[in-house]
Amino acid sequence: MRPILAAALAAALAVPATAEQPPVSLQSWGSFHVGGREVVISGQPVREVLFSPGGVPARVDPNGTYLMGMMYAQYMIPANPRGQAPLLMWHGGGLSGVTYETTPDGREGWQNFFLRQGWPTYVSDAVERGRAGWTLIPEQTGGQAMVLTVDNPFERFRIGAGPGSFARNEVLPGNQFPADRESYLSFMRQIVPRFTTTDDLALDAYLALLDRVGPSVVLAHSQAGLFGWRAAQERPDKVRALVLVEPAAIGDPAKVAALRNVPVLMVYGDYIAQDSRWPAIRGNGVRFAEAVRAAAGSVDVVDLPERGIRGNSHMMMMDRNNQAVAQVIQDWLAQRGLWR
Amino acid sequence: MRPILAAALAAALAVPATAEQPPVSLQSWGSFHVGGREVVISGQPVREVLFSPGGVPARVDPNGTYLMGMMYAQYMIPANPRGQAPLLMWHGGGLSGVTYETTPDGREGWQNFFLRQGWPTYVSDAVERGRAGWTLIPEQTGGQAMVLTVDNPFERFRIGAGPGSFARNEVLPGNQFPADRESYLSFMRQIVPRFTTTDDLALDAYLALLDRVGPSVVLAHSQAGLFGWRAAQERPDKVRALVLVEPAAIGDPAKVAALRNVPVLMVYGDYIAQDSRWPAIRGNGVRFAEAVRAAAGSVDVVDLPERGIRGNSHMMMMDRNNQAVAQVIQDWLAQRGLWR
Repeated sequence: MRPILAAALAAALAVPATAEQPPVSLQSWGSFHVGGREVVISGQPVREVLFSPGGVPARVDPNGTYLMGMMYAQYMIPANPRGQAPLLMWHGGGLSGVTYETTPDGREGWQNFFLRQGWPTYVSDAVERGRAGWTLIPEQTGGQAMVLTVDNPFERFRIGAGPGSFARNEVLPGNQFPADRESYLSFMRQIVPRFTTTDDLALDAYLALLDRVGPSVVLAHSQAGLFGWRAAQERPDKVRALVLVEPAAIGDPAKVAALRNVPVLMVYGDYIAQDSRWPAIRGNGVRFAEAVRAAAGSVDVVDLPERGIRGNSHMMMMDRNNQAVAQVIQDWLAQRGLWR
Repeated sequence: MRPILAAALAAALAVPATAEQPPVSLQSWGSFHVGGREVVISGQPVREVLFSPGGVPARVDPNGTYLMGMMYAQYMIPANPRGQAPLLMWHGGGLSGVTYETTPDGREGWQNFFLRQGWPTYVSDAVERGRAGWTLIPEQTGGQAMVLTVDNPFERFRIGAGPGSFARNEVLPGNQFPADRESYLSFMRQIVPRFTTTDDLALDAYLALLDRVGPSVVLAHSQAGLFGWRAAQERPDKVRALVLVEPAAIGDPAKVAALRNVPVLMVYGDYIAQDSRWPAIRGNGVRFAEAVRAAAGSVDVVDLPERGIRGNSHMMMMDRNNQAVAQVIQDWLAQRGLWR
């Protein structure tokens, strides 16, 4: 195109700094849902609903068959792939696939990074979150959803210096999270309600995703560490490698042997030793890694500060040095022959 | 790249028919949230929550400040834009931006079509839906959400032949919607819960989107017809053109004069005369169009069957002839100098 129009358009659109980067050519892109099940409701009264003001009322019979437990995935396939398998990007709790998109302060996220490296990327929204939808039938989820106050992730995700730090606007020294108020609230806008009782549904949907897409590299964050470990245990032939970014949970200790042919990378950020919860969470993860190794599996644990990469919060894919962290993962995948 | 690897990858990924199309070069792509407001909750008990099994319980204080009413938008900017403004794609009720992505039977959707034409596309999830998140504070939405049974859209969106047609598996003759059971259930997986009381919140967020992106072409479907009309009335300088696909509601009759410099296209599908609700909905729309014309505005109404394009359901962006319908819109925009 005409560079002047491009520049004018970029300015007019307030497109962030990404506009400086070279274009990327896509062979295809799109989305789909997988998984889910039918739920039948009966015995409820029929009602009339006016869907739009000035519209025409419609008769709505709440009895009938609903779908629930499905998952959403969006793919972008580069025209010149270098990744040797699709890269599935699984978000953490209270979040959606937006985790891997543009950072809250407008920089390119990890989906952009890995697509630019030539990976076919699949960013999903887990069951009951984002474009997966959510069910209005509490009996089917085993509990109510919860959502977080603005101070909670600031103090729990190692952005601020513990309890009360949001009110004090006190960020951990050297923290790389874009914690200015505007960016932080943009991150909070990404938070979605979370059911704590839908893990089995979510795992089923992730297995359906693997069955549909085929052998893949799975990159899982936080809560999805559980799903990454367990999906690899259930489908070891469909997980070419497992990258766990600060996994919040471990796999099934009875099935460590299933992981012996799945190379695993675990990545942890900064400020863990001083945190009230993260030493225990990391400790659980490292002990599970040892059990996998004892069963002939291969697990690499990277503590980023030991690589000289400092200041990373739990949301390291959004941190200002997010590209440096992504490069650690990229190098590890390339070393295993999964990128050429 | 190496065509053999591309073909093998496409086969391995089960990428749908899109793989036959030429690649598209993106200058940038990403997402953001806009709008929303803070809501303060107080007087609720603190509790401990175990977010992941085997994890470490976290103290969750539900009192505090929440964000609600924000909206999500995802953009893809072509390297060679031909659209003279961004194209904002606003979905209908009970749905999300997925409406415009891959069709339920795996063909390219309207987002693909318009991006391939060179439009910078912005696909959004309206307030309380999809990646916009939703609030757990019913007082803030004025009502409970509702979700649809599998038979409801089949019978209400002019796919099946009226009440009972889903159970009978009776599709309207010549209908273009991919109504085989597998594809139809894939469409149902896109349905999300819907609040019928959040129109003001949604309109505020759409205005925030226009303020952020700048002068745009707005393409709005069904429920979003309301938001399209009203947003154009509130921000006539930011809506270069308004394309309303079977709008379910009209604008503010007191503000028709605000629309005099906003060209409008209204598109209606097939089977309207025989439907129980659509003659009235279309009638309301056409009468409002006449009022806009009487105030010196320009509104074109296209009934697709009169153009020889037959069989279209309310979800025409997913119909098998969705490209032909998109071409009608594309030609109209080009005729108005908005595409070169």
